[in-house]
Amino acid sequence: MKSRDGFSVGIDVGGTKTAMGLVSSEGVLLDYLNFETQSSKGIPDAARRMADGMHGLLQSAGLSKEHLVGIGMGCPGPLDLEKGLVRNPYTLPGWETGSLTDAVADATGMPVRLENDADAALLGECWVGAGQRRDPVMMLTFGTGVGGALLCQGRLLRGARGEHPEIGLIPVQPGMDADYSGVEGSLESLASGGGIAKRAKPIGFMDAQAVFEAADQGHEAAKALVQDALSGVSVAAWIAVHAYHPECIILGGGLMDHHFELYAQSMRQAITRAVLVEASAIEVVAARLGNQAGMLGAASLWHRER
Amino acid sequence: MKSRDGFSVGIDVGGTKTAMGLVSSEGVLLDYLNFETQSSKGIPDAARRMADGMHGLLQSAGLSKEHLVGIGMGCPGPLDLEKGLVRNPYTLPGWETGSLTDAVADATGMPVRLENDADAALLGECWVGAGQRRDPVMMLTFGTGVGGALLCQGRLLRGARGEHPEIGLIPVQPGMDADYSGVEGSLESLASGGGIAKRAKPIGFMDAQAVFEAADQGHEAAKALVQDALSGVSVAAWIAVHAYHPECIILGGGLMDHHFELYAQSMRQAITRAVLVEASAIEVVAARLGNQAGMLGAASLWHRER
Repeated sequence: MKSRDGFSVGIDVGGTKTAMGLVSSEGVLLDYLNFETQSSKGIPDAARRMADGMHGLLQSAGLSKEHLVGIGMGCPGPLDLEKGLVRNPYTLPGWETGSLTDAVADATGMPVRLENDADAALLGECWVGAGQRRDPVMMLTFGTGVGGALLCQGRLLRGARGEHPEIGLIPVQPGMDADYSGVEGSLESLASGGGIAKRAKPIGFMDAQAVFEAADQGHEAAKALVQDALSGVSVAAWIAVHAYHPECIILGGGLMDHHFELYAQSMRQAITRAVLVEASAIEVVAARLGNQAGMLGAASLWHRER
Repeated sequence: MKSRDGFSVGIDVGGTKTAMGLVSSEGVLLDYLNFETQSSKGIPDAARRMADGMHGLLQSAGLSKEHLVGIGMGCPGPLDLEKGLVRNPYTLPGWETGSLTDAVADATGMPVRLENDADAALLGECWVGAGQRRDPVMMLTFGTGVGGALLCQGRLLRGARGEHPEIGLIPVQPGMDADYSGVEGSLESLASGGGIAKRAKPIGFMDAQAVFEAADQGHEAAKALVQDALSGVSVAAWIAVHAYHPECIILGGGLMDHHFELYAQSMRQAITRAVLVEASAIEVVAARLGNQAGMLGAASLWHRER
């Protein structure tokens, strides 16, 4: 499919908030708005609010529906991309029945495309952010969990039956206990905000940020937890080098706002040890689009070649 | 590029032997022949022998060059696919200068396409072997080393600058010593024929086959080495589930002629433990095309959509 002229609406659905933006075919975000997702009110209610949002964005930009080519949505999975189903009762309870894309298409009169949210963020970064003109590009998003995605030969890595591979859950320390996701010693259990917080709870820390601060001040147990996180990202980089040989690893997510250099340094050190690949060919870079990556990537579903 | 009618010649270049076959657009191998690669004689000499081979295959099939759409080659890397360069002085000494594809095109008068040999074998299996109608498909070839390749959304996983990711070298035991390839605790060091032989040498075994036989007869040290190999493939499967979420893992190579069930069982057990993916969606199957996979896959470069 060729890239299309005209504008699109990109919608980034989160468990708590939904952001939607009006985006040009060159990837310029003209305007955006946020509202509470409130998935428990059901799909038709959300679709109505998305339609209202679309009309509001068009109006304030002096545009009309004729200027739009479509609506793109990024959503936490598991998803059925073809049917537009959301099967995520943990993050989006109330959306288990019916097609989200059909409902939004009905409410807006526009065609709708759906993508996994981690994939949408990667598409955004590759379109107008840190991953431009790179391939393959791996993205890891360190927030409560670890999201992961890979673009290769211009296409997203899709698993069996179109499912999203859980790259963020790469096992990095096989002997360890299973975390909530059931993956023993996963990257998420060691290096995500939620994983660090969970491991730090028994020694009295409230969240990951407190652990990093205490480690900075020399707290031994906190330093050990940070060291485990860095060892985890180091092994993840080591695996990524051999499994994907990416040209670029993008690190995003809230935890990277303050700790990007720490994580990036550990990954770069691991990559430098590789002898079969030219380490200089693999960059570890910070995400550039922040929380707009998902919106822009969702919009890009209407503008990029597929 | 659309699939093409007509016949093609598929050439599988190995360090010792080269196999070339005449293949129909449906993937039927009409005839094939083998000769010594003798790379040290240089590229022009090899290109002449390949041209002779092509004419011989055509003649015995009652066909002429007009029936051919092109020549496909699979070759051990590193390669420069665009320029047709072979940069592998270990396996193919004497081919470091000049373009192999240009030389073969000159000698045969046919257009030539080049692919990494592990990728060619995977393409063959996906065309007419164990990977048909599956996606993504991961292939691991256990011989002297471990070759690895992935097909995703119909395309090969290519690394930075088109280089071949070393999937066969996935680290499966991070604490271990580096093997000859420089990858600490790689799948290859634990589970390849060469890796097992190297580890078994200090305790008096000649090769991997001797280790497997001794383990069968209860030899404790041999059993431990086999156990390490199985633990290695088990971790590799565990990583693959999360990094690729393949629909199908194909195991090939000489070691799998006798030990496929042993390796496959360990991988299946690991996959069954995964909770985020439906384990039943991931098959571990034996390669079907044996040493014809590379030839057929090289030929498929002219017949498959790309």
